[in-house]
Amino acid sequence: METISTNRSFDGSLVRATHASEACVCDMTFAIYLPPQAEDGPVPVLYWLSGLTCTDENFMQKAGAQRVAAELGIAIVAPDTSPRGTDLPGEHESYDLGSGAGFYVNATQEPWSAHYRMYDYVTRELPALVEAQFPVSDVRGVSGHSMGGHGALICHLKNPGMYRSVSAFAPICHPSECQWGRKAFATYLGESRDNWAEWDAALLIGDAKSKIPLLIDQGSDDEFLSDQLKPGALEQAAICSHYPLELRYQEGYDHSYFFIASFIEDHLRHHARGMGL
Amino acid sequence: METISTNRSFDGSLVRATHASEACVCDMTFAIYLPPQAEDGPVPVLYWLSGLTCTDENFMQKAGAQRVAAELGIAIVAPDTSPRGTDLPGEHESYDLGSGAGFYVNATQEPWSAHYRMYDYVTRELPALVEAQFPVSDVRGVSGHSMGGHGALICHLKNPGMYRSVSAFAPICHPSECQWGRKAFATYLGESRDNWAEWDAALLIGDAKSKIPLLIDQGSDDEFLSDQLKPGALEQAAICSHYPLELRYQEGYDHSYFFIASFIEDHLRHHARGMGL
Repeated sequence: METISTNRSFDGSLVRATHASEACVCDMTFAIYLPPQAEDGPVPVLYWLSGLTCTDENFMQKAGAQRVAAELGIAIVAPDTSPRGTDLPGEHESYDLGSGAGFYVNATQEPWSAHYRMYDYVTRELPALVEAQFPVSDVRGVSGHSMGGHGALICHLKNPGMYRSVSAFAPICHPSECQWGRKAFATYLGESRDNWAEWDAALLIGDAKSKIPLLIDQGSDDEFLSDQLKPGALEQAAICSHYPLELRYQEGYDHSYFFIASFIEDHLRHHARGMGL
Repeated sequence: METISTNRSFDGSLVRATHASEACVCDMTFAIYLPPQAEDGPVPVLYWLSGLTCTDENFMQKAGAQRVAAELGIAIVAPDTSPRGTDLPGEHESYDLGSGAGFYVNATQEPWSAHYRMYDYVTRELPALVEAQFPVSDVRGVSGHSMGGHGALICHLKNPGMYRSVSAFAPICHPSECQWGRKAFATYLGESRDNWAEWDAALLIGDAKSKIPLLIDQGSDDEFLSDQLKPGALEQAAICSHYPLELRYQEGYDHSYFFIASFIEDHLRHHARGMGL
């Protein structure tokens, strides 16, 4: 692991680092914010999964999360959104596939399966790395935005007990039934929809083994709300299976980081409760 | 004036707009954050002047200011840092001259004098425009970062009474005696140093007509501290003239927006006090 940069932030440290990833078979970059409390010992850690086109940098620069994380004593880890530098055919041609669009699944289709194993990366390799290299504990939360909001949902739903808290901003809720999801799933997982169900939050939530409270914020003026995000599908499945979902529509907000920044404090306090802080 | 975008942010609105500038003789873009209180009538307004290479966007995306502005009921205006689209010889060749580096002066040297009149723009044209077009009052504050921190200082010092409050983050304090300042001043104002004094905060502060409290935060690990920023020169002049300057060295902080975000709340509360809020 090699440190790229360190910035002081709210009396804690923001570190960017790169390492050779076994899961993705390429160098991967991530950011970690360590609150001041980490100087005295391991602190709980929130994994933040970003949306399409993002890198490890967007959340740390734009969400304004460090202030509240420093108050609560929560570390935050922000991975990149896909493998990088592998130059697969078509990897850099569209914003919603390949680079910046790993969708937090393990690809089974060639050539993607050689590198696009973001699910293993964010649920196995990265937690093991940061828990070994930084003063963070195994008290974990997971959250994210859009594609990464869906990533947070499936990371939790497929790993009951791994995370103490979960939330999402404007997540893609039912990728099997939206254009972004169908394109990515067909490419990474194959055309057979039978293989998609185990990666689709709206289909997984009905069988959730760990029913920790789920907080979702969704802007009412989000341009992707009805075509891509489809929170109604997740809400319906949650109601049917008695999953404790709080889905909040925020009047006038869009899909941008200005929306995330406006409500990140609520989410961090939600995670602090789940983490027992 | 044409609106480019509007984003909901902390129950207020962030608006980007463009207009034909008389001062700069080109189209200029600026951002304005209107807190929720602006729905009920004019609110005080803080002018934020950004540093080298920035546009109107950096501060609004990275400083995390909207949360506190929304609480206090302060609007924030962030202009661009230079004229754009004029394509003068050499205008786009270096980060510290021309595009993104207007230095908030009125150029007297050709060809710059035809467009590079950022001082008139930020102290005359822009306040008149936003006070006419948006629900903001003539209760004004001014702040900024680096080149824009110096801009904030000279805007206040050259216009006693125009601003009720002033602060700066890591300002260039004595441009006549640093490389950034000498390069810009020689180009925009000519080689004669006699013409520089009226644009140099460390030389102006001794004759300040309005001694409102000045808050400056400076990171102790700022890579530009000793060569470019030279706060000691300003502090010395302030002490000699009994100007009420609070210069705080913040241990471990650098020149980045992570530094600004860590202390923007203190500055906004400083401005609120000056504005009588």
